[in-house]
Amino acid sequence: MISHDLWLRPLPDVPLIEPGDDLAEIILASIEKADWDLQNGDVLVMAQKIVSKAENRTVDLATVIPSPRAIELATEVQKDARLVELILSESETVVRRGPGVLIVEHKLGFVMANAGIDRSNVNGEDHALLLPVDPDRSATAIRRAIAARVEIDVGVLIIDSFGRAWRNGTIGTAIGASGVPTLLDLRGRPDLFGRPLETTEVGWADELAAAASLMMGQAGEGRPVILVRGLVETGEGSTADLLRPKQKDLFR
Amino acid sequence: MISHDLWLRPLPDVPLIEPGDDLAEIILASIEKADWDLQNGDVLVMAQKIVSKAENRTVDLATVIPSPRAIELATEVQKDARLVELILSESETVVRRGPGVLIVEHKLGFVMANAGIDRSNVNGEDHALLLPVDPDRSATAIRRAIAARVEIDVGVLIIDSFGRAWRNGTIGTAIGASGVPTLLDLRGRPDLFGRPLETTEVGWADELAAAASLMMGQAGEGRPVILVRGLVETGEGSTADLLRPKQKDLFR
Ligand SMILES: Nc1nc2c(ncn2[C@@H]2O[C@H](COP(=O)(O)OP(=O)(O)O)[C@@H](O)[C@H]2O)c(=O)[nH]1
Ligand SMILES: Nc1nc2c(ncn2[C@@H]2O[C@H](COP(=O)(O)OP(=O)(O)O)[C@@H](O)[C@H]2O)c(=O)[nH]1
Ligand SMILES: [Mn+2]
Ligand SMILES: [Mn+2]
Ligand SMILES: [Mn+2]
Ligand SMILES: [Mn+2]
Repeated sequence: MISHDLWLRPLPDVPLIEPGDDLAEIILASIEKADWDLQNGDVLVMAQKIVSKAENRTVDLATVIPSPRAIELATEVQKDARLVELILSESETVVRRGPGVLIVEHKLGFVMANAGIDRSNVNGEDHALLLPVDPDRSATAIRRAIAARVEIDVGVLIIDSFGRAWRNGTIGTAIGASGVPTLLDLRGRPDLFGRPLETTEVGWADELAAAASLMMGQAGEGRPVILVRGLVETGEGSTADLLRPKQKDLFR
Repeated sequence: MISHDLWLRPLPDVPLIEPGDDLAEIILASIEKADWDLQNGDVLVMAQKIVSKAENRTVDLATVIPSPRAIELATEVQKDARLVELILSESETVVRRGPGVLIVEHKLGFVMANAGIDRSNVNGEDHALLLPVDPDRSATAIRRAIAARVEIDVGVLIIDSFGRAWRNGTIGTAIGASGVPTLLDLRGRPDLFGRPLETTEVGWADELAAAASLMMGQAGEGRPVILVRGLVETGEGSTADLLRPKQKDLFR
Protein backbone atom coordinates (compact mmCIF):
# COMPACT_ATOMS: atom_id res chain seq x y z
CA MET A 1 0.00 0.00 0.00
CA ILE A 2 1.03 3.60 -0.45
CA SER A 3 1.88 4.82 2.99
CA HIS A 4 0.70 8.32 3.51
CA ASP A 5 2.84 9.96 6.16
CA LEU A 6 2.86 13.36 7.75
CA TRP A 7 6.16 14.59 8.98
CA LEU A 8 7.37 17.58 10.90
CA ARG A 9 10.96 18.77 11.01
CA PRO A 10 12.38 21.72 12.95
CA LEU A 11 14.64 23.98 10.88
CA PRO A 12 18.19 23.97 12.23
CA ASP A 13 20.46 26.93 12.87
CA VAL A 14 17.84 29.65 13.13
CA PRO A 15 19.56 32.62 14.81
CA LEU A 16 18.16 34.93 17.45
CA ILE A 17 15.81 37.09 15.43
CA GLU A 18 16.36 40.86 15.46
CA PRO A 19 14.16 43.76 14.34
CA GLY A 20 14.22 44.08 10.57
CA ASP A 21 15.39 40.54 9.94
CA ASP A 22 14.18 38.97 6.69
CA LEU A 23 12.52 35.74 7.86
CA ALA A 24 12.12 34.33 4.35
CA GLU A 25 15.84 34.72 3.77
CA ILE A 26 16.73 33.21 7.16
CA ILE A 27 14.40 30.25 6.55
CA LEU A 28 15.77 29.57 3.07
CA ALA A 29 19.34 29.82 4.36
CA SER A 30 18.59 27.28 7.08
CA ILE A 31 17.02 24.87 4.59
CA GLU A 32 19.90 25.25 2.16
CA LYS A 33 22.53 24.79 4.86
CA ALA A 34 20.81 21.59 5.99
CA ASP A 35 20.79 20.41 2.39
CA TRP A 36 17.01 20.01 2.35
CA ASP A 37 14.56 21.05 -0.30
CA LEU A 38 11.24 22.84 -0.19
CA GLN A 39 8.32 21.42 -2.16
CA ASN A 40 5.02 22.87 -3.31
CA GLY A 41 2.45 22.01 -0.66
CA ASP A 42 4.92 22.12 2.23
CA VAL A 43 3.81 24.25 5.14
CA LEU A 44 6.16 26.32 7.28
CA VAL A 45 4.79 26.81 10.78
CA MET A 46 6.50 29.54 12.75
CA ALA A 47 6.35 30.93 16.26
CA GLN A 48 4.68 34.28 16.86
CA LYS A 49 7.81 35.31 18.76
CA ILE A 50 10.10 35.41 15.75
CA VAL A 51 7.56 37.19 13.56
CA SER A 52 6.99 39.80 16.27
CA LYS A 53 10.73 40.21 16.78
CA ALA A 54 11.37 40.66 13.06
CA GLU A 55 8.56 43.24 12.94
CA ASN A 56 10.06 45.11 15.89
CA ARG A 57 7.03 44.69 18.11
CA THR A 58 9.18 44.93 21.23
CA VAL A 59 8.17 47.54 23.79
CA ASP A 60 10.46 48.72 26.58
CA LEU A 61 8.28 48.78 29.68
CA ALA A 62 10.31 51.75 30.96
CA THR A 63 8.62 53.84 28.25
CA VAL A 64 5.07 52.84 29.21
CA ILE A 65 3.02 55.18 31.43
CA PRO A 66 0.10 53.27 32.95
CA SER A 67 -3.32 54.91 32.94
CA PRO A 68 -5.36 55.09 36.17
CA ARG A 69 -7.47 52.18 34.90
CA ALA A 70 -4.35 50.08 34.26
CA ILE A 71 -3.04 50.86 37.74
CA GLU A 72 -6.33 49.84 39.32
CA LEU A 73 -6.58 46.63 37.31
CA ALA A 74 -2.91 45.83 37.97
CA THR A 75 -3.48 46.02 41.71
CA GLU A 76 -6.53 43.81 41.41
CA VAL A 77 -4.85 41.03 39.41
CA GLN A 78 -1.35 41.62 40.79
CA LYS A 79 0.49 42.37 37.59
CA ASP A 80 2.97 45.06 36.52
CA ALA A 81 0.83 48.15 35.80
CA ARG A 82 2.89 48.96 32.69
CA LEU A 83 2.24 45.49 31.34
CA VAL A 84 -1.48 45.89 32.08
CA GLU A 85 -1.39 49.21 30.21
CA LEU A 86 0.10 47.43 27.19
CA ILE A 87 -2.45 44.61 27.44
CA LEU A 88 -5.33 47.08 27.54
CA SER A 89 -3.98 49.06 24.61
CA GLU A 90 -3.82 45.85 22.53
CA SER A 91 -7.34 44.76 23.48
CA GLU A 92 -10.93 45.39 22.62
CA THR A 93 -12.35 44.27 25.97
CA VAL A 94 -11.39 42.44 29.14
CA VAL A 95 -13.39 39.19 29.14
CA ARG A 96 -12.33 37.89 32.57
CA ARG A 97 -9.81 38.79 35.24
CA GLY A 98 -8.11 36.39 37.61
CA PRO A 99 -5.01 36.24 39.81
CA GLY A 100 -2.08 37.13 37.53
CA VAL A 101 -4.12 36.98 34.35
CA LEU A 102 -6.34 39.10 32.16
CA ILE A 103 -8.35 37.20 29.57
CA VAL A 104 -9.03 39.73 26.84
CA GLU A 105 -10.45 39.99 23.40
CA HIS A 106 -7.43 41.13 21.43
CA LYS A 107 -7.99 43.79 18.78
CA LEU A 108 -7.36 41.02 16.24
CA GLY A 109 -10.35 39.11 17.67
CA PHE A 110 -8.47 36.40 19.59
CA VAL A 111 -9.72 35.64 23.09
CA MET A 112 -6.47 35.07 24.93
CA ALA A 113 -4.52 35.64 28.10
CA ASN A 114 -2.66 38.94 28.50
CA ALA A 115 -3.21 39.92 24.85
CA GLY A 116 -0.52 37.43 23.84
CA ILE A 117 2.18 39.55 25.50
CA ASP A 118 4.82 37.52 27.24
CA ARG A 119 8.46 37.99 28.03
CA SER A 120 10.01 34.55 27.68
CA ASN A 121 12.57 34.16 24.88
CA VAL A 122 12.69 37.97 24.61
CA ASN A 123 15.97 39.77 25.24
CA GLY A 124 16.06 42.43 27.93
CA GLU A 125 14.67 42.25 31.46
CA ASP A 126 11.92 44.80 30.88
CA HIS A 127 11.02 44.14 27.28
CA ALA A 128 7.59 42.90 26.24
CA LEU A 129 6.71 41.59 22.81
CA LEU A 130 3.34 42.32 21.17
CA LEU A 131 1.63 40.18 18.53
CA PRO A 132 2.34 41.09 14.90
CA VAL A 133 0.10 43.96 13.73
CA ASP A 134 -1.63 41.76 11.13
CA PRO A 135 -0.46 38.13 11.33
CA ASP A 136 -2.34 36.96 8.21
CA ARG A 137 -0.57 39.71 6.29
CA SER A 138 2.77 38.74 7.85
CA ALA A 139 2.20 35.13 6.76
CA THR A 140 1.36 36.24 3.23
CA ALA A 141 4.46 38.43 3.04
CA ILE A 142 6.74 35.57 4.10
CA ARG A 143 5.03 33.21 1.68
CA ARG A 144 5.41 35.65 -1.21
CA ALA A 145 9.03 36.36 -0.39
CA ILE A 146 9.80 32.63 -0.44
CA ALA A 147 7.93 32.15 -3.72
CA ALA A 148 9.79 35.10 -5.23
CA ARG A 149 13.15 33.59 -4.34
CA VAL A 150 12.68 29.89 -5.05
CA GLU A 151 9.45 29.65 -7.08
CA ILE A 152 7.87 27.26 -4.61
CA ASP A 153 4.45 27.86 -3.13
CA VAL A 154 4.53 26.89 0.53
CA GLY A 155 1.82 27.52 3.08
CA VAL A 156 2.74 29.68 6.06
CA LEU A 157 1.17 29.43 9.49
CA ILE A 158 2.02 31.68 12.45
CA ILE A 159 1.15 30.23 15.83
CA ASP A 160 1.13 31.22 19.48
CA SER A 161 0.71 29.28 22.73
CA PHE A 162 -2.84 29.78 24.05
CA GLY A 163 -4.47 28.79 27.31
CA ARG A 164 -7.97 27.34 27.11
CA ALA A 165 -11.20 27.39 29.06
CA TRP A 166 -11.75 24.24 31.18
CA ARG A 167 -8.42 22.58 30.47
CA ASN A 168 -4.95 23.06 31.91
CA GLY A 169 -1.92 23.83 29.79
CA THR A 170 -1.33 25.88 26.68
CA ILE A 171 -1.56 24.54 23.15
CA GLY A 172 -0.23 25.90 19.88
CA THR A 173 -2.97 27.93 18.16
CA ALA A 174 -3.12 29.61 14.76
CA ILE A 175 -2.91 33.41 14.66
CA GLY A 176 -1.83 34.01 11.05
CA ALA A 177 -2.22 31.99 7.87
CA SER A 178 -1.51 32.11 4.16
CA GLY A 179 -1.96 29.34 1.62
CA VAL A 180 -3.49 26.84 4.05
CA PRO A 181 -7.03 26.00 5.10
CA THR A 182 -8.00 27.41 8.49
CA LEU A 183 -11.56 26.29 9.20
CA LEU A 184 -12.44 23.16 7.26
CA ASP A 185 -16.07 22.81 6.22
CA LEU A 186 -16.92 19.12 6.03
CA ARG A 187 -20.59 19.54 5.15
CA GLY A 188 -21.67 16.80 2.82
CA ARG A 189 -18.72 14.49 3.37
CA PRO A 190 -20.05 10.97 3.85
CA ASP A 191 -19.19 8.99 6.96
CA LEU A 192 -18.25 5.29 6.96
CA PHE A 193 -21.90 4.40 6.35
CA GLY A 194 -22.57 6.98 3.65
CA ARG A 195 -24.41 9.41 5.93
CA PRO A 196 -23.43 13.10 5.84
CA LEU A 197 -21.45 14.31 8.85
CA GLU A 198 -22.91 15.77 12.04
CA THR A 199 -19.73 17.59 12.96
CA THR A 200 -19.28 19.97 10.08
CA GLU A 201 -16.35 22.18 10.93
CA VAL A 202 -12.80 21.39 11.92
CA GLY A 203 -10.29 23.88 13.33
CA TRP A 204 -7.73 22.51 10.90
CA ALA A 205 -5.13 25.27 11.25
CA ASP A 206 -5.35 24.98 15.02
CA GLU A 207 -4.70 21.25 14.78
CA LEU A 208 -1.66 21.95 12.63
CA ALA A 209 -0.54 24.67 15.06
CA ALA A 210 -0.74 22.21 17.96
CA ALA A 211 1.19 19.60 15.99
CA ALA A 212 4.01 22.03 15.23
CA SER A 213 4.03 23.31 18.81
CA LEU A 214 4.94 19.79 19.99
CA MET A 215 8.20 20.23 18.07
CA MET A 216 8.86 23.86 19.01
CA GLY A 217 8.60 23.60 22.76
CA GLN A 218 8.34 26.76 24.88
CA ALA A 219 11.81 27.22 26.28
CA GLY A 220 15.34 27.60 24.92
CA GLU A 221 15.00 24.89 22.27
CA GLY A 222 15.56 27.45 19.53
CA ARG A 223 13.16 25.76 17.12
CA PRO A 224 10.85 28.53 15.94
CA VAL A 225 10.14 27.13 12.45
CA ILE A 226 8.75 23.67 11.65
CA LEU A 227 8.60 22.29 8.15
CA VAL A 228 5.51 20.13 7.63
CA ARG A 229 5.14 17.78 4.68
CA GLY A 230 2.35 15.41 3.72
CA LEU A 231 -0.74 17.47 4.48
CA VAL A 232 -3.63 16.56 2.20
CA GLU A 233 -6.16 19.33 2.71
CA THR A 234 -5.56 22.46 0.69
CA GLY A 235 -7.19 25.84 0.74
CA GLU A 236 -6.80 29.54 1.43
CA GLY A 237 -8.24 30.37 4.83
CA SER A 238 -8.00 33.41 7.03
CA THR A 239 -7.49 33.05 10.77
CA ALA A 240 -10.56 35.28 11.16
CA ASP A 241 -12.61 32.24 10.07
CA LEU A 242 -11.51 30.53 13.28
CA LEU A 243 -13.03 33.24 15.46
CA ARG A 244 -16.51 32.57 16.80
CA PRO A 245 -18.51 35.81 16.70
CA LYS A 246 -19.33 37.10 20.19
CA GLN A 247 -23.07 36.84 19.64
CA LYS A 248 -22.76 33.11 18.88
CA ASP A 249 -20.38 32.47 21.77
CA LEU A 250 -21.81 30.91 24.92
CA PHE A 251 -18.69 31.83 26.92
CA ARG A 252 -18.43 35.59 26.53
CA MET B 1 23.32 17.65 11.76
CA ILE B 2 21.06 15.00 13.19
CA SER B 3 17.63 15.79 11.91
CA HIS B 4 15.01 15.19 14.51
CA ASP B 5 11.73 14.42 12.78
CA LEU B 6 8.27 13.65 14.03
CA TRP B 7 6.16 11.52 11.81
CA LEU B 8 2.59 10.33 11.84
CA ARG B 9 1.26 7.39 9.85
CA PRO B 10 -2.32 6.09 9.71
CA LEU B 11 -2.60 2.34 10.15
CA PRO B 12 -4.00 0.71 7.00
CA ASP B 13 -6.75 -1.89 6.76
CA VAL B 14 -8.46 -1.28 10.07
CA PRO B 15 -11.90 -2.94 9.81
CA LEU B 16 -15.21 -1.60 11.08
CA ILE B 17 -14.93 -2.21 14.82
CA GLU B 18 -17.57 -4.35 16.51
CA PRO B 19 -18.43 -4.89 20.17
CA GLY B 20 -15.93 -7.22 21.80
CA ASP B 21 -13.20 -6.64 19.22
CA ASP B 22 -9.65 -6.89 20.52
CA LEU B 23 -8.10 -3.56 19.47
CA ALA B 24 -4.55 -4.60 20.36
CA GLU B 25 -4.84 -7.61 18.10
CA ILE B 26 -6.38 -5.58 15.27
CA ILE B 27 -3.66 -2.94 15.55
CA LEU B 28 -0.84 -5.48 15.56
CA ALA B 29 -2.38 -7.29 12.58
CA SER B 30 -2.55 -4.03 10.63
CA ILE B 31 1.07 -3.21 11.41
CA GLU B 32 2.23 -6.69 10.49
CA LYS B 33 0.26 -6.74 7.25
CA ALA B 34 1.81 -3.41 6.25
CA ASP B 35 5.22 -4.85 7.05
CA TRP B 36 5.98 -2.12 9.58
CA ASP B 37 7.51 -2.46 13.01
CA LEU B 38 6.62 -1.00 16.38
CA GLN B 39 9.37 0.55 18.50
CA ASN B 40 9.62 1.43 22.16
CA GLY B 41 8.59 5.07 22.50
CA ASP B 42 6.12 4.96 19.62
CA VAL B 43 2.70 6.31 20.46
CA LEU B 44 -0.54 4.93 19.05
CA VAL B 45 -3.25 7.57 18.92
CA MET B 46 -6.74 6.21 18.45
CA ALA B 47 -10.20 7.62 17.92
CA GLN B 48 -12.71 7.47 20.77
CA LYS B 49 -15.15 5.92 18.32
CA ILE B 50 -13.32 2.64 17.90
CA VAL B 51 -12.63 2.28 21.62
CA SER B 52 -16.29 2.92 22.41
CA LYS B 53 -17.40 0.48 19.72
CA ALA B 54 -15.08 -2.26 20.97
CA GLU B 55 -16.38 -1.68 24.51
CA ASN B 56 -19.96 -1.90 23.30
CA ARG B 57 -20.94 1.60 24.38
CA THR B 58 -23.63 1.77 21.71
CA VAL B 59 -27.13 2.64 22.86
CA ASP B 60 -30.22 2.07 20.75
CA LEU B 61 -32.25 5.27 21.14
CA ALA B 62 -35.44 3.18 20.81
CA THR B 63 -34.70 1.80 24.28
CA VAL B 64 -34.27 5.22 25.92
CA ILE B 65 -37.21 6.72 27.83
CA PRO B 66 -36.67 10.46 28.29
CA SER B 67 -37.38 11.99 31.70
CA PRO B 68 -39.58 15.09 31.99
CA ARG B 69 -36.44 17.20 32.42
CA ALA B 70 -34.92 15.74 29.24
CA ILE B 71 -38.14 16.43 27.33
CA GLU B 72 -38.20 20.03 28.52
CA LEU B 73 -34.53 20.60 27.71
CA ALA B 74 -34.92 18.88 24.33
CA THR B 75 -37.71 21.27 23.37
CA GLU B 76 -35.61 24.21 24.49
CA VAL B 77 -32.49 23.28 22.50
CA GLN B 78 -34.33 21.44 19.70
CA LYS B 79 -32.74 18.03 20.05
CA ASP B 80 -34.08 14.47 20.20
CA ALA B 81 -35.37 14.01 23.76
CA ARG B 82 -33.93 10.51 23.95
CA LEU B 83 -30.51 11.85 23.04
CA VAL B 84 -30.87 14.58 25.67
CA GLU B 85 -31.76 11.89 28.20
CA LEU B 86 -28.54 10.05 27.35
CA ILE B 87 -26.50 13.25 27.52
CA LEU B 88 -27.91 14.07 30.95
CA SER B 89 -27.28 10.57 32.25
CA GLU B 90 -23.64 10.84 31.16
CA SER B 91 -23.13 14.27 32.73
CA GLU B 92 -22.51 15.92 36.05
CA THR B 93 -24.00 19.29 35.11
CA VAL B 94 -25.18 21.29 32.13
CA VAL B 95 -22.74 24.20 31.75
CA ARG B 96 -24.48 26.04 28.90
CA ARG B 97 -27.33 25.39 26.50
CA GLY B 98 -27.65 26.72 22.97
CA PRO B 99 -29.53 25.93 19.77
CA GLY B 100 -28.83 22.24 19.05
CA VAL B 101 -26.16 21.92 21.71
CA LEU B 102 -25.74 21.18 25.39
CA ILE B 103 -22.33 21.99 26.82
CA VAL B 104 -21.98 19.72 29.81
CA GLU B 105 -19.48 18.63 32.37
CA HIS B 106 -19.19 14.94 31.59
CA LYS B 107 -18.98 12.56 34.56
CA LEU B 108 -15.35 12.02 33.54
CA GLY B 109 -14.74 15.76 34.08
CA PHE B 110 -14.51 16.88 30.44
CA VAL B 111 -16.41 20.04 29.53
CA MET B 112 -17.75 19.15 26.09
CA ALA B 113 -20.70 19.34 23.72
CA ASN B 114 -23.42 16.72 24.09
CA ALA B 115 -21.36 14.57 26.48
CA GLY B 116 -19.30 13.38 23.53
CA ILE B 117 -22.24 11.49 22.10
CA ASP B 118 -22.45 11.66 18.35
CA ARG B 119 -23.80 9.41 15.64
CA SER B 120 -21.39 9.80 12.73
CA ASN B 121 -19.42 6.68 11.76
CA VAL B 122 -21.81 4.62 13.90
CA ASN B 123 -23.87 1.90 12.26
CA GLY B 124 -27.65 2.09 12.64
CA GLU B 125 -29.90 5.09 12.14
CA ASP B 126 -30.88 5.38 15.79
CA HIS B 127 -27.70 4.29 17.51
CA ALA B 128 -25.71 6.62 19.72
CA LEU B 129 -22.23 5.92 21.00
CA LEU B 130 -21.11 6.94 24.51
CA LEU B 131 -17.55 7.64 25.62
CA PRO B 132 -15.61 4.69 27.05
CA VAL B 133 -16.40 4.18 30.76
CA ASP B 134 -12.83 4.95 31.83
CA PRO B 135 -10.66 6.01 28.87
CA ASP B 136 -7.37 6.10 30.83
CA ARG B 137 -8.06 2.50 31.83
CA SER B 138 -8.94 1.58 28.24
CA ALA B 139 -5.64 3.08 27.07
CA THR B 140 -3.73 1.15 29.70
CA ALA B 141 -5.44 -2.11 28.76
CA ILE B 142 -4.57 -1.68 25.08
CA ARG B 143 -1.00 -0.73 25.96
CA ARG B 144 -0.60 -3.79 28.20
CA ALA B 145 -2.11 -6.13 25.62
CA ILE B 146 0.35 -4.88 23.01
CA ALA B 147 3.29 -5.22 25.39
CA ALA B 148 2.16 -8.73 26.31
CA ARG B 149 2.14 -9.80 22.66
CA VAL B 150 5.21 -8.08 21.21
CA GLU B 151 7.22 -6.93 24.25
CA ILE B 152 7.26 -3.34 23.07
CA ASP B 153 6.18 -0.48 25.29
CA VAL B 154 4.17 1.99 23.24
CA GLY B 155 2.22 4.93 24.56
CA VAL B 156 -1.52 4.94 23.90
CA LEU B 157 -3.65 8.05 23.54
CA ILE B 158 -7.42 8.05 23.01
CA ILE B 159 -8.79 11.23 21.48
CA ASP B 160 -12.10 12.81 20.59
CA SER B 161 -13.11 15.84 18.53
CA PHE B 162 -13.97 18.73 20.85
CA GLY B 163 -15.47 22.14 20.18
CA ARG B 164 -13.92 25.07 22.00
CA ALA B 165 -14.97 28.33 23.60
CA TRP B 166 -14.33 31.40 21.41
CA ARG B 167 -13.09 29.56 18.33
CA ASN B 168 -14.89 27.78 15.50
CA GLY B 169 -14.24 24.18 14.58
CA THR B 170 -13.43 21.06 16.53
CA ILE B 171 -9.94 19.88 17.35
CA GLY B 172 -8.63 16.50 18.45
CA THR B 173 -8.42 16.42 22.25
CA ALA B 174 -7.08 13.82 24.67
CA ILE B 175 -9.59 11.80 26.69
CA GLY B 176 -7.52 8.74 27.65
CA ALA B 177 -3.78 8.20 28.08
CA SER B 178 -1.26 5.60 29.11
CA GLY B 179 2.51 5.80 28.90
CA VAL B 180 2.62 9.39 27.65
CA PRO B 181 2.86 12.78 29.34
CA THR B 182 -0.43 14.66 29.48
CA LEU B 183 0.24 18.01 31.16
CA LEU B 184 3.88 19.02 30.83
CA ASP B 185 5.31 21.05 33.68
CA LEU B 186 8.03 23.30 32.33
CA ARG B 187 8.83 25.10 35.55
CA GLY B 188 12.53 25.82 35.74
CA ARG B 189 13.31 25.23 32.08
CA PRO B 190 15.52 28.09 30.89
CA ASP B 191 14.48 30.21 27.93
CA LEU B 192 16.86 31.35 25.17
CA PHE B 193 18.36 33.91 27.55
CA GLY B 194 18.66 31.61 30.56
CA ARG B 195 15.61 32.96 32.35
CA PRO B 196 13.06 30.49 33.76
CA LEU B 197 9.81 30.24 31.79
CA GLU B 198 6.70 32.32 32.43
CA THR B 199 4.38 29.82 30.75
CA THR B 200 4.82 26.74 32.88
CA GLU B 201 2.34 24.18 31.67
CA VAL B 202 1.72 22.71 28.24
CA GLY B 203 -1.29 20.60 27.25
CA TRP B 204 1.09 18.17 25.59
CA ALA B 205 -1.34 15.28 25.10
CA ASP B 206 -3.87 17.69 23.59
CA GLU B 207 -1.24 18.91 21.13
CA LEU B 208 -0.54 15.31 20.16
CA ALA B 209 -4.26 14.61 19.90
CA ALA B 210 -4.69 17.55 17.52
CA ALA B 211 -1.73 16.40 15.44
CA ALA B 212 -3.17 12.90 15.05
CA SER B 213 -6.62 14.27 14.33
CA LEU B 214 -5.23 16.00 11.22
CA MET B 215 -4.52 12.52 9.86
CA MET B 216 -7.74 10.85 11.03
CA GLY B 217 -10.25 13.24 9.58
CA GLN B 218 -13.90 13.10 10.71
CA ALA B 219 -15.66 11.30 7.88
CA GLY B 220 -15.34 7.99 6.07
CA GLU B 221 -11.54 8.04 5.86
CA GLY B 222 -11.36 4.88 7.96
CA ARG B 223 -8.18 5.98 9.75
CA PRO B 224 -8.90 5.54 13.43
CA VAL B 225 -5.33 4.75 14.55
CA ILE B 226 -2.26 6.90 13.94
CA LEU B 227 1.25 5.70 14.69
CA VAL B 228 3.46 8.54 15.93
CA ARG B 229 7.23 8.28 16.05
CA GLY B 230 9.87 10.76 17.13
CA LEU B 231 8.32 12.29 20.23
CA VAL B 232 10.94 13.40 22.73
CA GLU B 233 9.01 14.06 25.91
CA THR B 234 8.29 11.01 28.04
CA GLY B 235 6.14 10.51 31.10
CA GLU B 236 3.10 8.86 32.61
CA GLY B 237 0.25 11.33 32.77
CA SER B 238 -3.44 10.97 33.41
CA THR B 239 -5.98 12.87 31.36
CA ALA B 240 -7.39 14.11 34.67
CA ASP B 241 -4.30 16.33 34.91
CA LEU B 242 -5.60 18.21 31.87
CA LEU B 243 -8.84 19.16 33.62
CA ARG B 244 -8.93 22.58 35.25
CA PRO B 245 -10.77 22.34 38.56
CA LYS B 246 -14.09 24.22 38.50
CA GLN B 247 -13.07 26.58 41.30
CA LYS B 248 -10.03 27.72 39.26
CA ASP B 249 -11.99 28.03 36.03
CA LEU B 250 -13.06 31.51 34.94
CA PHE B 251 -15.51 30.08 32.40
CA ARG B 252 -17.82 27.87 34.47
N1 LIG C 1 16.24 30.36 16.91
C1 LIG C 1 15.36 31.09 17.58
N2 LIG C 1 14.39 30.48 18.27
C2 LIG C 1 13.47 31.23 18.92
C3 LIG C 1 13.51 32.64 18.93
N3 LIG C 1 12.48 33.08 19.69
C4 LIG C 1 11.82 31.98 20.12
N4 LIG C 1 12.41 30.86 19.65
C5 LIG C 1 12.03 29.45 19.83
O1 LIG C 1 10.71 29.30 19.33
C6 LIG C 1 10.04 28.28 20.04
C7 LIG C 1 8.75 28.84 20.62
O2 LIG C 1 9.08 29.85 21.57
P1 LIG C 1 7.95 30.57 22.42
O3 LIG C 1 8.59 31.58 23.32
O4 LIG C 1 7.07 29.56 23.09
O5 LIG C 1 7.15 31.32 21.25
P2 LIG C 1 5.58 31.71 21.13
O6 LIG C 1 4.78 30.48 21.48
O7 LIG C 1 5.44 32.17 19.71
O8 LIG C 1 5.33 32.83 22.10
C8 LIG C 1 11.03 27.77 21.09
O9 LIG C 1 11.73 26.67 20.55
C9 LIG C 1 11.98 28.96 21.25
O10 LIG C 1 13.25 28.58 21.73
C10 LIG C 1 14.56 33.28 18.19
O11 LIG C 1 14.68 34.50 18.14
N5 LIG C 1 15.45 32.46 17.55
N1 LIG D 1 -11.52 1.58 10.11
C1 LIG D 1 -12.40 2.19 10.89
N2 LIG D 1 -12.36 3.53 10.99
C2 LIG D 1 -13.24 4.13 11.83
C3 LIG D 1 -14.20 3.44 12.57
N3 LIG D 1 -14.93 4.35 13.26
C4 LIG D 1 -14.41 5.56 12.97
N4 LIG D 1 -13.38 5.44 12.10
C5 LIG D 1 -12.51 6.48 11.52
O1 LIG D 1 -11.88 7.15 12.60
C6 LIG D 1 -11.61 8.52 12.24
C7 LIG D 1 -12.26 9.44 13.26
O2 LIG D 1 -13.68 9.27 13.19
P1 LIG D 1 -14.66 10.16 14.09
O3 LIG D 1 -16.06 9.75 13.82
O4 LIG D 1 -14.35 11.60 13.89
O5 LIG D 1 -14.21 9.68 15.54
P2 LIG D 1 -14.20 10.50 16.94
O6 LIG D 1 -13.52 11.82 16.72
O7 LIG D 1 -13.46 9.59 17.87
O8 LIG D 1 -15.64 10.66 17.37
C8 LIG D 1 -12.17 8.66 10.82
O9 LIG D 1 -11.10 8.44 9.91
C9 LIG D 1 -13.21 7.55 10.72
O10 LIG D 1 -13.44 7.14 9.40
C10 LIG D 1 -14.22 2.03 12.44
O11 LIG D 1 -15.02 1.33 13.07
N5 LIG D 1 -13.31 1.44 11.60
MN1 LIG E 1 3.73 34.08 22.39
MN1 LIG F 1 5.06 29.07 22.92
MN1 LIG G 1 -16.49 11.29 19.13
MN1 LIG H 1 -13.67 13.11 15.16
